[in-house]
Amino acid sequence: MVKNPPVIGRLAILGIGLIGSSVSRAARQYGAAGEVVAYDPDAGRLATALELSAIDRAATSIADAVADADMVLICAPVGAMGGIAAAAAPAMRPGAILSDVGSTKTSVVADVAPHVPAGIHFVPAHPVAGTEKSGPEHGFATLFDGRWCILTPPSIEGADAGAVDLCTRFWRAMGSNVDVMTPEHHDTVLAITSHLPHLISYTIVGTVMDLEEHHHWEVFKYAAGGFRDFSRLAGSDPVMWRDVFLNNRDAVLEMLGRFTEDLQALQRAIRWGEADKLEALFTRTRDARRAIIEARQA
Amino acid sequence: MVKNPPVIGRLAILGIGLIGSSVSRAARQYGAAGEVVAYDPDAGRLATALELSAIDRAATSIADAVADADMVLICAPVGAMGGIAAAAAPAMRPGAILSDVGSTKTSVVADVAPHVPAGIHFVPAHPVAGTEKSGPEHGFATLFDGRWCILTPPSIEGADAGAVDLCTRFWRAMGSNVDVMTPEHHDTVLAITSHLPHLISYTIVGTVMDLEEHHHWEVFKYAAGGFRDFSRLAGSDPVMWRDVFLNNRDAVLEMLGRFTEDLQALQRAIRWGEADKLEALFTRTRDARRAIIEARQA
Repeated sequence: MVKNPPVIGRLAILGIGLIGSSVSRAARQYGAAGEVVAYDPDAGRLATALELSAIDRAATSIADAVADADMVLICAPVGAMGGIAAAAAPAMRPGAILSDVGSTKTSVVADVAPHVPAGIHFVPAHPVAGTEKSGPEHGFATLFDGRWCILTPPSIEGADAGAVDLCTRFWRAMGSNVDVMTPEHHDTVLAITSHLPHLISYTIVGTVMDLEEHHHWEVFKYAAGGFRDFSRLAGSDPVMWRDVFLNNRDAVLEMLGRFTEDLQALQRAIRWGEADKLEALFTRTRDARRAIIEARQA
Repeated sequence: MVKNPPVIGRLAILGIGLIGSSVSRAARQYGAAGEVVAYDPDAGRLATALELSAIDRAATSIADAVADADMVLICAPVGAMGGIAAAAAPAMRPGAILSDVGSTKTSVVADVAPHVPAGIHFVPAHPVAGTEKSGPEHGFATLFDGRWCILTPPSIEGADAGAVDLCTRFWRAMGSNVDVMTPEHHDTVLAITSHLPHLISYTIVGTVMDLEEHHHWEVFKYAAGGFRDFSRLAGSDPVMWRDVFLNNRDAVLEMLGRFTEDLQALQRAIRWGEADKLEALFTRTRDARRAIIEARQA
């Protein structure tokens, strides 16, 4: 069996947490990249990644990491993307691709694009995958398998077309499905599918923590009643999520406003004992959810 | 190997949906009951349960089902418990146990107790287990394995002590852990661990359904970002959950009020870009969740 050459020769990963280390493992294991060099300002984290053989080489600086890379992937909280891009882009070789894995895309485009010189192809990306854990010791190679990766390139014509195609093949090699859309559309959809659920999860765990202490144990003890699914996301990285909410503020506030209105309508129906209204709503949501899931499976 | 006699000789199950049929399967398989007779006003559902051998015999009426039963278990939406108890209790043999599986306990005690004659032992129960599916075809014998069952008996002294002990052994035989508490305490704890998560799940799916239709597909497509965990509960039985919210109204409104206040504080912090406040809250909830989970595993 002839082994295909890797999609990307040398990959530089800037930020080697859960996502960065998972990309590194997956890229080498599935032939998405031939070699992975990583840099992280947290020396301990970088050393851990190297000890675990999650990366091939630990760089001494951003410039050192990106110098000969064919693709540079920023795997950091979205609030830090601009500063990292400012340090990385001037040191990259012409023709290389600059990408990221941020959960918001409008803000990343706004923060990163001004630092990208001519000759570097900027292709923002968001792999919709993750766990509630943090750090390179929790990364694993199958994290992106069967998940979606969304690309939000400035253009898919001309010189950029080749870069978008390469990014598509890069993520597909790791088992992902790839979609292309505008940053604005991405941020609207993710506000409700991901950002609002995280916001609710942090809130409900906070609400429990403000109850008397003997309740805390009981809530987790009887978590099988529904709380378990809801509290898991609240274990996610605080800095990453602080940045997501601040950098997708408008879309998050819009979805949160709609959700809160709907919740208040339901609250009123409960207070006034409107049985028919409750049953009608629950039937509608159950049926809609079922229809969509069945249609997707068909 | 000598086989132990079943904990309960003849068990009557009134209402043969997901929970009733799971109790029936588990009770016979794990020796919690020797024989299961079931009644359901929905003849089709009763026939399905019999065809699937989920029960031993289909009764022709409530009175027929409970006549010679050692334990009668009402497995119906909590709003229907009072009417079923009124029909069942007078037909039960003296010394038998009347129990239920309702998700609210104060209302069940208020609705059922007035119908319980002297000589019948009333032991309300709530197995904290379930799936988002409904109907006897979705029941399975391991549903209660490793889950908690909460008993809320009027008293655990005198004649009731024997009945509470028997119920404890009944649920333990099916793999459950058993706790005993007051109905009021149960309703407070379950309001936040189970009822509020279901309320939020129904709401967020409703919010999605009110978005433009092309968004519906996308939300489920990218559900791995968090939405999947949140939407699952919205597939649950509408009548069952309508009754839960109406019958645990005060505790649900109290927890919902606290949750909404907390959500609004978070909304304000996002609007005004209060990064430190967001990070502090997310760190607190992550650490608290982690500490409790680790303490429980220790």
